Amino acid sequence: MPFEITKKIVEQVTAYIDAKNDVALDKLFCEMHHADIAEILDEISFDRAVYIIKLLDSEKTSEVLMDVDDDVREKILKKLSAKEIAEEIDELDTDDAADIIAELPEAKKEAVMSEIEDVEHAKDIVELLRYDEDSAGGLMAKELVKANENWTIVQCVRELRKQASEVTRVHSIYVVDDSDKLKGRLSLKDLLMAPARAHISDFYIPKVDFVRVNDTSEDVANIMRKYDLSAIPVVDELGVLVGRITIDDVVDIIKEEADKDYQMAAGLTEDVEAGDSIVQLTKARLPWLILGLFGGIGAAAIMAGYENIIKDHAVLFFFTPLIAAMAGNVGVQSSAIIVQGLANNDVKGSIANRLWKELLLAIVNGIILAILLFIYTYATGGDYKVSLAISISLFSVIIMAGIIGTFIPLFLDKRGIDPAIATGPFITTSNDIFGILIYFLIARLILGF
Amino acid sequence: MPFEITKKIVEQVTAYIDAKNDVALDKLFCEMHHADIAEILDEISFDRAVYIIKLLDSEKTSEVLMDVDDDVREKILKKLSAKEIAEEIDELDTDDAADIIAELPEAKKEAVMSEIEDVEHAKDIVELLRYDEDSAGGLMAKELVKANENWTIVQCVRELRKQASEVTRVHSIYVVDDSDKLKGRLSLKDLLMAPARAHISDFYIPKVDFVRVNDTSEDVANIMRKYDLSAIPVVDELGVLVGRITIDDVVDIIKEEADKDYQMAAGLTEDVEAGDSIVQLTKARLPWLILGLFGGIGAAAIMAGYENIIKDHAVLFFFTPLIAAMAGNVGVQSSAIIVQGLANNDVKGSIANRLWKELLLAIVNGIILAILLFIYTYATGGDYKVSLAISISLFSVIIMAGIIGTFIPLFLDKRGIDPAIATGPFITTSNDIFGILIYFLIARLILGF
Repeated sequence: MPFEITKKIVEQVTAYIDAKNDVALDKLFCEMHHADIAEILDEISFDRAVYIIKLLDSEKTSEVLMDVDDDVREKILKKLSAKEIAEEIDELDTDDAADIIAELPEAKKEAVMSEIEDVEHAKDIVELLRYDEDSAGGLMAKELVKANENWTIVQCVRELRKQASEVTRVHSIYVVDDSDKLKGRLSLKDLLMAPARAHISDFYIPKVDFVRVNDTSEDVANIMRKYDLSAIPVVDELGVLVGRITIDDVVDIIKEEADKDYQMAAGLTEDVEAGDSIVQLTKARLPWLILGLFGGIGAAAIMAGYENIIKDHAVLFFFTPLIAAMAGNVGVQSSAIIVQGLANNDVKGSIANRLWKELLLAIVNGIILAILLFIYTYATGGDYKVSLAISISLFSVIIMAGIIGTFIPLFLDKRGIDPAIATGPFITTSNDIFGILIYFLIARLILGF
Repeated sequence: MPFEITKKIVEQVTAYIDAKNDVALDKLFCEMHHADIAEILDEISFDRAVYIIKLLDSEKTSEVLMDVDDDVREKILKKLSAKEIAEEIDELDTDDAADIIAELPEAKKEAVMSEIEDVEHAKDIVELLRYDEDSAGGLMAKELVKANENWTIVQCVRELRKQASEVTRVHSIYVVDDSDKLKGRLSLKDLLMAPARAHISDFYIPKVDFVRVNDTSEDVANIMRKYDLSAIPVVDELGVLVGRITIDDVVDIIKEEADKDYQMAAGLTEDVEAGDSIVQLTKARLPWLILGLFGGIGAAAIMAGYENIIKDHAVLFFFTPLIAAMAGNVGVQSSAIIVQGLANNDVKGSIANRLWKELLLAIVNGIILAILLFIYTYATGGDYKVSLAISISLFSVIIMAGIIGTFIPLFLDKRGIDPAIATGPFITTSNDIFGILIYFLIARLILGF
């Protein structure tokens, strides 16, 4: 069932375009889902993609435009006239339309808006552009089906037929009072099951989950996921129904959020994909590697400060990669648990409580690992005191790494900074330096150099 | 709007339970959403949670049971009799019911099944238990609304009223032929808009996305996300409609998959949360740390082999943490891009192509980083030849780490193993050892010791 974009299809499309065989292209694409067409457009050259967009109906291309990669869309929009973009916008739901308009340069924005035929549609888009793109207002669409609480079922069905033709997918009918304030909801199922003469006020569900226009998109995603909602109404500061958000948009947010955290943990600054260019990939990767390089240089500088003991205690230097690696691993583990907990809203209790727990955990893990390391170093002929120094250092470094890994993301979160930046190379690098510093300090204490 | 579980609510619930104040508890929970009750149950002691489950209506508690943490549910189910569990099962949709049954020990499974009152419901559950839990069959529910293509609209609405009372949320009506084969779909909206005497066959949508019972849950998630579906029908090998999957279940899968990859990258073997016990957290973290310990010991052993040169080339030893860290960082970056690309289905081209691209990328990054390191070591009074040896080693290690980080996940994926295990500590540790080995080999080549 899942449609696969094969090399053959891409080659065929390319051949048709180069031969300007519009009939064959029309036939090929007419039955195809817009998400599949978008995948093909991502694969072919940019000029060919523009050719397809200009060839196909805007009813179809508008959806395709929403599905292509961001960079492909940006390039295509540059090649389209204001009038051509306005035609696409006319076909889109307000939320998607506003997203496209927001991506345009200022001058083109106005040109496109003035070309939009449907004045109501244009007004709705302008309203949506006011909201922050990461808020409920920025996510919502104006298309929804609403009913006045005083209507009868028959009235409601009649009105619904009018309204529903505008709305792609009807999840719920939102019930409002005379001043458009959200009162409750009604499912299509309930409407179908209700006696024709009943009034909506008699049987709508007054308990309805909603979000406010200024709630963050993360909050919206958490509520919809927690309560298993497929759509949620959005109200303004006065409780007036102003839009609705559907789960498909939220699924993308959940996926993007999770992907972003993962990339941060792996040391990738920008949203990159395997297919991106070497320049894009380098931009995403190099900054973190340079950070790592500085960390390594810092560690080397610390070790250089102890050069005078290298004759007597060479073995101490052999274990610096181990100490650095363990500090990094423990730090990443601790911070990842906190970052994920913060994202899922289940980090409970105070910072002090969390640190206390992490401390206990680090003590448990630290003791086990320190004993293992002591056994190895001592058994392989190490000096008793040196083995002890290395093991105790490892124990201390694990505790430090756990505490830093827990504290930094909690601290960043409290300050309103995305805690995910605290995972990955950032925590690894700082723990490398601190780890090696602590290691030599403790070794000096025990071995007295 | 989002409901917050405050410390106060938890304390109040605890006090009510301890005073056996059932009236107050009933009143408190009657208006509360099951997902919120579940959050409270996760917070209070286990005996108190059982008390609440036994107190409230099974109509409510069945949903609560689905929402509590897995380990809390397991404990609660142990305390309930087969009859009590069967009452909960009776209230649940077949997909949730099957999930609960699947978690029970074999003996209790049969006892519970024999207590279920609704025979049809029990039959459906037994059918669902046959499917792998990670397949479309394991995800689907039997509850759906279907219509025969030969019905009139009036017939359809009448039948629908009967069927829909069983189904929590109606997304689409699935149209089937006389042998129950899936033919197409019909939205409730279309049904509302259609003339009463029309036949379904005249205007249902024959193009309908579907999955087969044996498709993996990952495939299901990808299709629903790509095509923005809120529900998808499931057919068996003969094309017969056997169930449907709704987006809320898939949202959880998407989130879990992403969380799992993230945890793997961070070195956490089991699905742990910030709130888990120290024993659970240790189980998830310690194995990776022990792996890291072995890696560090390996690196130390390699360095011990070069002890004789430590007098002349002490500086080489100072840069081992840097080399190990860079090898780890590059490896994690490369593998994360591949793992995420595989999960999102956008790694195109052959393994050879991917390796070639990674090689170019590693050369670009490697040259820049090696030059930076050379400038630092030479400028801080380093010997020309030693600086060159360290920089060239760094360059080589970056290339090796990039290739290993790209190859391992692609290789695992080809062999049907989850490539996510190749990220995090696994790749870091192996790259640490290889990195230090290469470093000393190259240094020996250049410095001739």
